[in-house]
Amino acid sequence: MRIAVLNGPNLNLLGSREPAVYGRASLGEIESMVRKAAADRGVDIDWLQTNHEGALIDAVQALPGRADGALVNAGALTHTSLALRDAMLAVRIPFVEVHLSNIFGREPARRQTLLADLAIGVICGFGAQSYLLGLEAMLGALRDT
Amino acid sequence: MRIAVLNGPNLNLLGSREPAVYGRASLGEIESMVRKAAADRGVDIDWLQTNHEGALIDAVQALPGRADGALVNAGALTHTSLALRDAMLAVRIPFVEVHLSNIFGREPARRQTLLADLAIGVICGFGAQSYLLGLEAMLGALRDT
Amino acid sequence: MRIAVLNGPNLNLLGSREPAVYGRASLGEIESMVRKAAADRGVDIDWLQTNHEGALIDAVQALPGRADGALVNAGALTHTSLALRDAMLAVRIPFVEVHLSNIFGREPARRQTLLADLAIGVICGFGAQSYLLGLEAMLGALRDT
Amino acid sequence: MRIAVLNGPNLNLLGSREPAVYGRASLGEIESMVRKAAADRGVDIDWLQTNHEGALIDAVQALPGRADGALVNAGALTHTSLALRDAMLAVRIPFVEVHLSNIFGREPARRQTLLADLAIGVICGFGAQSYLLGLEAMLGALRDT
Amino acid sequence: MRIAVLNGPNLNLLGSREPAVYGRASLGEIESMVRKAAADRGVDIDWLQTNHEGALIDAVQALPGRADGALVNAGALTHTSLALRDAMLAVRIPFVEVHLSNIFGREPARRQTLLADLAIGVICGFGAQSYLLGLEAMLGALRDT
Amino acid sequence: MRIAVLNGPNLNLLGSREPAVYGRASLGEIESMVRKAAADRGVDIDWLQTNHEGALIDAVQALPGRADGALVNAGALTHTSLALRDAMLAVRIPFVEVHLSNIFGREPARRQTLLADLAIGVICGFGAQSYLLGLEAMLGALRDT
Amino acid sequence: MRIAVLNGPNLNLLGSREPAVYGRASLGEIESMVRKAAADRGVDIDWLQTNHEGALIDAVQALPGRADGALVNAGALTHTSLALRDAMLAVRIPFVEVHLSNIFGREPARRQTLLADLAIGVICGFGAQSYLLGLEAMLGALRDT
Amino acid sequence: MRIAVLNGPNLNLLGSREPAVYGRASLGEIESMVRKAAADRGVDIDWLQTNHEGALIDAVQALPGRADGALVNAGALTHTSLALRDAMLAVRIPFVEVHLSNIFGREPARRQTLLADLAIGVICGFGAQSYLLGLEAMLGALRDT
Amino acid sequence: MRIAVLNGPNLNLLGSREPAVYGRASLGEIESMVRKAAADRGVDIDWLQTNHEGALIDAVQALPGRADGALVNAGALTHTSLALRDAMLAVRIPFVEVHLSNIFGREPARRQTLLADLAIGVICGFGAQSYLLGLEAMLGALRDT
Amino acid sequence: MRIAVLNGPNLNLLGSREPAVYGRASLGEIESMVRKAAADRGVDIDWLQTNHEGALIDAVQALPGRADGALVNAGALTHTSLALRDAMLAVRIPFVEVHLSNIFGREPARRQTLLADLAIGVICGFGAQSYLLGLEAMLGALRDT
Amino acid sequence: MRIAVLNGPNLNLLGSREPAVYGRASLGEIESMVRKAAADRGVDIDWLQTNHEGALIDAVQALPGRADGALVNAGALTHTSLALRDAMLAVRIPFVEVHLSNIFGREPARRQTLLADLAIGVICGFGAQSYLLGLEAMLGALRDT
Amino acid sequence: MRIAVLNGPNLNLLGSREPAVYGRASLGEIESMVRKAAADRGVDIDWLQTNHEGALIDAVQALPGRADGALVNAGALTHTSLALRDAMLAVRIPFVEVHLSNIFGREPARRQTLLADLAIGVICGFGAQSYLLGLEAMLGALRDT
Repeated sequence: MRIAVLNGPNLNLLGSREPAVYGRASLGEIESMVRKAAADRGVDIDWLQTNHEGALIDAVQALPGRADGALVNAGALTHTSLALRDAMLAVRIPFVEVHLSNIFGREPARRQTLLADLAIGVICGFGAQSYLLGLEAMLGALRDT
Repeated sequence: MRIAVLNGPNLNLLGSREPAVYGRASLGEIESMVRKAAADRGVDIDWLQTNHEGALIDAVQALPGRADGALVNAGALTHTSLALRDAMLAVRIPFVEVHLSNIFGREPARRQTLLADLAIGVICGFGAQSYLLGLEAMLGALRDT
Repeated sequence: MRIAVLNGPNLNLLGSREPAVYGRASLGEIESMVRKAAADRGVDIDWLQTNHEGALIDAVQALPGRADGALVNAGALTHTSLALRDAMLAVRIPFVEVHLSNIFGREPARRQTLLADLAIGVICGFGAQSYLLGLEAMLGALRDT
Repeated sequence: MRIAVLNGPNLNLLGSREPAVYGRASLGEIESMVRKAAADRGVDIDWLQTNHEGALIDAVQALPGRADGALVNAGALTHTSLALRDAMLAVRIPFVEVHLSNIFGREPARRQTLLADLAIGVICGFGAQSYLLGLEAMLGALRDT
Repeated sequence: MRIAVLNGPNLNLLGSREPAVYGRASLGEIESMVRKAAADRGVDIDWLQTNHEGALIDAVQALPGRADGALVNAGALTHTSLALRDAMLAVRIPFVEVHLSNIFGREPARRQTLLADLAIGVICGFGAQSYLLGLEAMLGALRDT
Repeated sequence: MRIAVLNGPNLNLLGSREPAVYGRASLGEIESMVRKAAADRGVDIDWLQTNHEGALIDAVQALPGRADGALVNAGALTHTSLALRDAMLAVRIPFVEVHLSNIFGREPARRQTLLADLAIGVICGFGAQSYLLGLEAMLGALRDT
Repeated sequence: MRIAVLNGPNLNLLGSREPAVYGRASLGEIESMVRKAAADRGVDIDWLQTNHEGALIDAVQALPGRADGALVNAGALTHTSLALRDAMLAVRIPFVEVHLSNIFGREPARRQTLLADLAIGVICGFGAQSYLLGLEAMLGALRDT
Repeated sequence: MRIAVLNGPNLNLLGSREPAVYGRASLGEIESMVRKAAADRGVDIDWLQTNHEGALIDAVQALPGRADGALVNAGALTHTSLALRDAMLAVRIPFVEVHLSNIFGREPARRQTLLADLAIGVICGFGAQSYLLGLEAMLGALRDT
Repeated sequence: MRIAVLNGPNLNLLGSREPAVYGRASLGEIESMVRKAAADRGVDIDWLQTNHEGALIDAVQALPGRADGALVNAGALTHTSLALRDAMLAVRIPFVEVHLSNIFGREPARRQTLLADLAIGVICGFGAQSYLLGLEAMLGALRDT
Repeated sequence: MRIAVLNGPNLNLLGSREPAVYGRASLGEIESMVRKAAADRGVDIDWLQTNHEGALIDAVQALPGRADGALVNAGALTHTSLALRDAMLAVRIPFVEVHLSNIFGREPARRQTLLADLAIGVICGFGAQSYLLGLEAMLGALRDT
Repeated sequence: MRIAVLNGPNLNLLGSREPAVYGRASLGEIESMVRKAAADRGVDIDWLQTNHEGALIDAVQALPGRADGALVNAGALTHTSLALRDAMLAVRIPFVEVHLSNIFGREPARRQTLLADLAIGVICGFGAQSYLLGLEAMLGALRDT
Repeated sequence: MRIAVLNGPNLNLLGSREPAVYGRASLGEIESMVRKAAADRGVDIDWLQTNHEGALIDAVQALPGRADGALVNAGALTHTSLALRDAMLAVRIPFVEVHLSNIFGREPARRQTLLADLAIGVICGFGAQSYLLGLEAMLGALRDT
């Protein structure tokens, strides 16, 4: 079993970027935690971070046949990219939307997500733990299918 | 350690109520799963379901000194009860908001929550598993404090 | 055959409350009229009035197996209670929404109903007669099923 | 006693037009039912259907002296014709607004009516029976005056 | 095969009416072009222009059995007539919406159409050529059915 | 010189229709006053009243070559008819918009006019005198051209 | 009989200010025209122009006992001054609102007036003639009282 | 003379609940202050606090014959309970709306009150003193009647 | 101790201006009542009324060093003057907002105040007594500092 | 003569992506159809598909001197990319906007296009045929210039 | 060459007024800096500050013939005074809008300016330096004409 | 000292792109002017233009350690890119927002900027001079820190 983890713009800055909001773990540290938890369950991880919307869309289009599910943290594109939504709609891979911060406690523009209604579910607000819970939720959902 | 689980109106109907949306597990079955997972970690559970907003507020007010954290699934009151929000604001107990269905994929009135910005985080869309993930997230957050 | 008649907050004040808007018949007098008309058709009536949203939800949840249909005049809760709507949605009992006053000729907040799209139909503006017409409509709809 | 029944655009297509929404009775069949129910009560019926807003306004203007009350199903003009509203406002004939479908369960544009606040009351959602209940309501209201 | 072409209010003034917006061809010249293109394909044309909304609705109601498809340029009624929309909805004849001007580059009130979601498609902005492209599109769609 | 006076729906009811709002003069009496004032200045009057939007559009289209200017009181169509606006836009005859009542002191739907920005100017609120002032304003404007 | 004419900010610039919108007559020339027309009818004129909202309010407050009616062209304050509206509301002097330009053909902010619903009526769009028509309307209305 | 003081949800937490917003006095201390001030004027006090909307409505319905006036601090229900508004509307007891905090300096949802237009007046922002001023205002208003 | 009382436009008309809304006391009578109540407490009063926004701003700017607090009834400027708000924001003198009428029971434009969030609190609806309660509240707040 | 055809994000998935909405033809098949139709008329085609907004803007900037006109199907960027709009605005190449689906019958976010007012016209809803009609319309428009 | 610098309400309080927002320089110090920078370039300065909107309008009207350009910092009137906008529109003197604070980082009401679209450009956020940059920009623009 | 100048989509077209709006200077000419002015002050310039949002974000992320401040003209991304805003928020480099045109005098979509509240200040409307003023403002702000 293989799960893709797709990270959008500015997530490569984690740790140094607004630590009061996003926590002190770097994206590399989160990746290690996720890979370890996945390995414990015999699951492979494909990991991507990019600041380019087009590259994220390319990656989504490449999912079918390569991954059984995905964790998606599209960063600010969550709120603005209709094209990314179209890509998720086209490939129809089951995915869980995750966020480090609780987006519902932030400014209005970040409370609306263009992806969430396509996702199995949403997990946000638990920092790096959001990814681990998301992995667990994703595997649970794949088991139920 | 003790965690309260507060369930709002109509959740007592789970299993028979719109199973396509809410799944086939009854609330009793979910309670058993949560109690078991909590017991495995040496955690006590206080469980409540009520159709009365006032009773839910009374229960929230009684949390301090009795529980270390809470899982809250306020049902439709999530979207309409400013008084419930005030109660959570007053007691300042850390809590996780959980929903069985993915509220962001439903009608507009259910996409806005009056509690989420007070919560540590939100978990929705995974059926009964939302409660288990919420328990794990709650314990993780308490550990980090 | 048994029809439940559910009356929400402040309807117990009928007769003394704003008679220019709601007419001079008391709720007791309306109940007698409805019971008599029902008896003429061999139909039993369950009658409830409450000022408590939670009690109304409890009553709705108790309908299956006890009533074949319902007349619902939820008073001001018609316009604000998403939880009551959820209860009607969950039990799926056929019902007719009735109002004494013509809610479409009143202030904007009273022109939107959260129940009407779940109802078979709506009858409003005919004072006590709204209940009698509602009974007839309810029986007609049950006959057609 | 004489009651006018005014039907607006596209109601002549009943039976063939979206039967899932409007039912299978033709307008002619509804007219027969209404005429029979009226005859049983010694009431005369004036029946009109037209697709022309102007013709409907002409008919409304001709009501005084010719009819004691009216049932009005203005079809889509219910939601758009301020001129029809003006006509009802000018003649001040008591009337009941009727609709075959439950307009409150349909798309937003059909939930607002420009006539309802001028009507004695509204009855909708009961198919052909809406007309019969409307007749009864109209006669009841005339009796009370 | 027979195609109806329905033209709404003020289109009879083409050529003299705001030529900068609508072009210099008269409606008669456009009719000739369309009839000729249709004749080349062995298709009959029914042509109507009227300033009366009711007459347009009557014409739409008469389509079934008389035409296989329609081109509809309802002029300003495109943006205001819910009754015309109802007529198209009732007859369920396949149609293409055409406009001489590019309505999306004009004032806001003309950018919303009440018919477009019922149409197979929309063609606008090409002057008289819009009708010819519309004919071609209509025939292509009928071929595919 | 010839001035057309175009009156829309329900203006034929003046005198009996809501006299508190529209005054006690009948439309016939206003017509006489206007004809007399026009005759004093050697001006001919074309007078029309109709309840049909299509007939009003036909009349507007017929203005060029027949009238030098127009007084337009379109009644409720002032606020809803984009097609009437298109007709005035197409014929480009100078006109003055007149109303018996002060539309800006009435309900919101009557405060917006779809014609006023095309008119030379607007006169409203002076009852029958609005027509006489409108005639004077129209003649003044034609003199200045 | 005495009529006050109150002019608001920037009207002192007439003639040089945007002549395409406001015409080429200076305010002094308009004052002469109005005084002459009033003298012909044996009416006295009180004339004021000020750029200060407070001074305009002072002037309105001084009207009772000094003037029988007023023409008010409040310039841009028409659209923004609730305090001026309050002053007119307090003194209850009959007045006519006049504007040189047709405010309904201008940008949205100028289409809403805070005074018009208190006025007898509104006259706009006829340049300097708006004042003369306003005087006539004012005298007509005083005659009818 | 007897004055009822009605307190809505969460006010029982005063003193411990967000003291920066609501002050450090407990509800019991405020009650004592109000009872003492009332006693000095020979006025009886009926005191209620409840977290249940229905109980508050019941209490309002019981006012007639038992109290001459009321102070109402409905907490968060001030902003959401149309049913409470209906109850106040039905009993027509004179009342003063009081709040500890200045609700107009808080978040938007708290700046709109559903009760204020029914009250004699509003007093907010003075902490416990709001109740004392409210008592004084209530007595002043009863004296003037 | 010295308290300034600042009154905005049209308050000089009290007594004659809409007595049903504002009461029958003149501003001079209110001033006397306030001066007397203040004298009883050994407090000096600075009293101002002006119709000029600029003069009110000048007066606010002059407060520091001259007054310990203020009562502000800015009349219609309450709802429109951002510059007055800026002045209050700049001088940071504690103040109480008072109104004679209950502004929350009036038209929408009067329900929003630009000053209230800067005030200690708001008192409205008690006629002349609003000023006396405001004085008491102001003194109470100064005592608590 | 040379026409560029620019395709935005996710159009490379045609055929497999939501075939009920977009049809079963792949983008390669559509390209062949367009190239063939163009070749029949002696017209060259430049074809581009990209998921990257920046690459699409680069391509638009390269049009002058290389193409006489363009067909643009910007996919989801149609509704969100102000930068793409700026590029079309800057190069001022005549273009036709095409869509496979009828965007006006889809969700609200897809009914607004940021490009359409710059285009000669819009053609949508005819699947692959939209491109062929667009080519024809483009050539017609170039002929008319 | 002569440049006018117009300062609106509350700018006379600079230095003491909210220094965190507006900086610690007094208006007198800013005036000295501007006069010195202007003198270095042989430019005369006319300096005005007033709290009265009317006085600001008078000053704007006096600009033609006296100044070649203007710097305008209208304070809060920037956001509310349509009359000031009219004055700038009438005199057509080139001007630069300056603000000490970055108005785009403040509350919504301060992000909309009624003057900016009439200005050559806007400079804000640089404290006293905004004036010096504005002077430079103004002179640059006059040089280019 | 080193200042980065970041230019977004379509700015490479300056000179040929809508010269009436953006002026006739090419971006290369502006770069030369800025480099020269910077060199005169001993400041280095890093210059970037790109049509790719991702590339702009990459560049922003690379600023720390490489530049002391930045001038940012993000073109159309100013109004739509929340991801670019996030990048500026993450790196916390002081920057000045510049625009060639006066964005406040353009269409509504260009009047809102997603970056301005993060900037020190905004300068717009002075063509190429905007960059020079921006450089001066940036250096002034760095001096003051």
